[in-house]
Amino acid sequence: MQPRRVIEDLRELDRRTGGPGGARRVCWTDEWQAARAFLRQRLDELPVTVELDAGGNLWAVLAGASQEMVVVGSHLDSVPGGGWLDGALGVFAAVEVLRTFAEAGTAPSRTVALVDWVDEEGARFGRSLLGSSAFAGTLDAAAVRGLTDADGVTLADALAASDVDVETMNTAGDTRRAQLAAYLELHIEQGPVLEGEGLACGAVLGTSGVERLRAVFSGQARHAGSTPMDRRRDAGVAAARAVVGLQAIGLDHGGVCTGGAVELEPGIVTAVPGRAELLIDQRHLDADALASMLADAYALLERSAAVEGCTVAVEPIWRIAPVPFHGRLIEAAAQACRAETGVERRLPSGALHDAAELARVCPTAMVFSSSVGGVSHAPDEDTPEADLERAIAAFGLLAAKVVAEDVG
Amino acid sequence: MQPRRVIEDLRELDRRTGGPGGARRVCWTDEWQAARAFLRQRLDELPVTVELDAGGNLWAVLAGASQEMVVVGSHLDSVPGGGWLDGALGVFAAVEVLRTFAEAGTAPSRTVALVDWVDEEGARFGRSLLGSSAFAGTLDAAAVRGLTDADGVTLADALAASDVDVETMNTAGDTRRAQLAAYLELHIEQGPVLEGEGLACGAVLGTSGVERLRAVFSGQARHAGSTPMDRRRDAGVAAARAVVGLQAIGLDHGGVCTGGAVELEPGIVTAVPGRAELLIDQRHLDADALASMLADAYALLERSAAVEGCTVAVEPIWRIAPVPFHGRLIEAAAQACRAETGVERRLPSGALHDAAELARVCPTAMVFSSSVGGVSHAPDEDTPEADLERAIAAFGLLAAKVVAEDVG
Repeated sequence: MQPRRVIEDLRELDRRTGGPGGARRVCWTDEWQAARAFLRQRLDELPVTVELDAGGNLWAVLAGASQEMVVVGSHLDSVPGGGWLDGALGVFAAVEVLRTFAEAGTAPSRTVALVDWVDEEGARFGRSLLGSSAFAGTLDAAAVRGLTDADGVTLADALAASDVDVETMNTAGDTRRAQLAAYLELHIEQGPVLEGEGLACGAVLGTSGVERLRAVFSGQARHAGSTPMDRRRDAGVAAARAVVGLQAIGLDHGGVCTGGAVELEPGIVTAVPGRAELLIDQRHLDADALASMLADAYALLERSAAVEGCTVAVEPIWRIAPVPFHGRLIEAAAQACRAETGVERRLPSGALHDAAELARVCPTAMVFSSSVGGVSHAPDEDTPEADLERAIAAFGLLAAKVVAEDVG
Repeated sequence: MQPRRVIEDLRELDRRTGGPGGARRVCWTDEWQAARAFLRQRLDELPVTVELDAGGNLWAVLAGASQEMVVVGSHLDSVPGGGWLDGALGVFAAVEVLRTFAEAGTAPSRTVALVDWVDEEGARFGRSLLGSSAFAGTLDAAAVRGLTDADGVTLADALAASDVDVETMNTAGDTRRAQLAAYLELHIEQGPVLEGEGLACGAVLGTSGVERLRAVFSGQARHAGSTPMDRRRDAGVAAARAVVGLQAIGLDHGGVCTGGAVELEPGIVTAVPGRAELLIDQRHLDADALASMLADAYALLERSAAVEGCTVAVEPIWRIAPVPFHGRLIEAAAQACRAETGVERRLPSGALHDAAELARVCPTAMVFSSSVGGVSHAPDEDTPEADLERAIAAFGLLAAKVVAEDVG
């Protein structure tokens, strides 16, 4: 593995499809196609077979001694104004894995494949992990075909324009799933944990489960001047009590709990708010702990409403179970990171990744690179170059071990 | 005084310029002109001289034995979808005061005048108390002439279309101010205090002072999934802590304190808020207590920011000093209310009124009628008819006493 080559490829990709305003590789756009064209250009230099599956995912396969396949990859697509590394790091690290095996001159013991999943971000239609869930066979075409973008274009039409049929994309993995021995992904952490400990990289334990709620507090909208404090039913204060309490729930359970969106009505300086809508996001790697956080949140919301003489209606808006990665592969990833940093660090992923879909069908692991300031989905997302080199090297080490079946 | 006649006039006004969607007498509109036309129709039946002053305020003067003038009135204009009583009650109660003196057959000992102030609400240009402040000589033409409505029309142009010159309207009271012996206004409370005590009406102590602040909390916008609780600088939690604390400040000082508007950025469920803007309104009838509330709010905002690792920038956006009404007139108003309800109730006004401008130039008092549920600026604003009758009768009693110089 020569990490410098990966960094050079990423810089070139950034010149072509990013820049000071951030990455602009929103899936199904020309910019994203340009990114794929650059990827194909690099793959053309290697003895690999390139093809698209029924989900539009791009595969580059380097034949090995056995048909058993170790898959390395990530996604080229980005959010608008995204970071230069989110997704792209894992794809070009995978290119370097193929390149390294190709340069070795002898066929690897297992087949090695790169994959570039389509539409990990869901930036245009709001459905993330599109390509990887199609591959895992968990995508429900009926639930996504009618999704529309800001211009009213349906997901089905946008995919058709890229020669992907939403009705059949769920078959993307049918022929290949049984062949898979492992899936490995390198990704930027998008959080401050590794940086805070001075570590270049770490092994990921799995992706956290998510419980997302909408809470609507109802009180009484009244004149802010003429309504005495003890005669109010202030939905804004009820929501504020909940937001403060959510923080404690996250801390108590070692998870995360966020009140990221609040809307008050009437929402003017001269009125006591009569209605407050609060959106809540809770995450934990442990399913039981997540269930406890959720129960605590419901109790908190009821208590916050009651103390202000308000009522609250709570509805779940989205949920996903925790996805723990594969024990022996996590160990191998941790060992590979220790070889580069001297420290074994395992951490959960609060963000979702394609690896969460792949973990349903084969042993899966991830390596995180550190994230400057924990910045994510923004032009200033970054990993220091020295950390990038170590993270890429650790990922190469992990891939080599797994391909050689030298794990666990 | 025959309160039924006032209620009949108010019902007729509601038929012409209100209805199920609420009052639609926004100042300077055709609907408002229609309300004034109905007022003139009623005034035409009386031996009064009707004229507009330089501010566009409508006066109807019933000559008395002395030139000293007792003024009774309020405003016909409303907010869009406003209540049927807000302003109109005081104007048509004033008509009944004139009518009662006219029917007595002999000239009152002092001159009695009705006034209908223009643009009390400021619903179109955001500047309230426009006509009464012009009359009091406190209006700064330079500060208002360029104000625009939602369509970009300037206040100066809108007033010119109603034959009011914004440059000279501040002279509206020049000839009449010295003549004024008292200003008396009947208004709906717009709050729940009288209703809560089962009272039809009460005497107003004055209008509360107001301190209005904008507080901008700055933290760090981060991924809600991948940023551990102890690594966050959550501007939303900081603002929530402030909103909860503001309630305690209002209760501690016997004033009111409201966080009516909050805006989070990025304001999405998947992000820790990096910025939170909070608008705060504080009111108290006592200037020292208001100053203490303001000091407490500044300290609270700093504390709320600091505990979340955020900073806060606070700027005053509007303020007005408390305006206490005239001691002997407050007593007379309280006695008049007691004659109708059996109870002397004095209460501050948290809302502003034209009386606050008049108090600068002559002895001033107000009577409040009760307010169903404390609802204000809404179609369901109301005073029960039985309470209306008592409140109007009490106001008539007060006016008779003041005109007869039988006060204090």
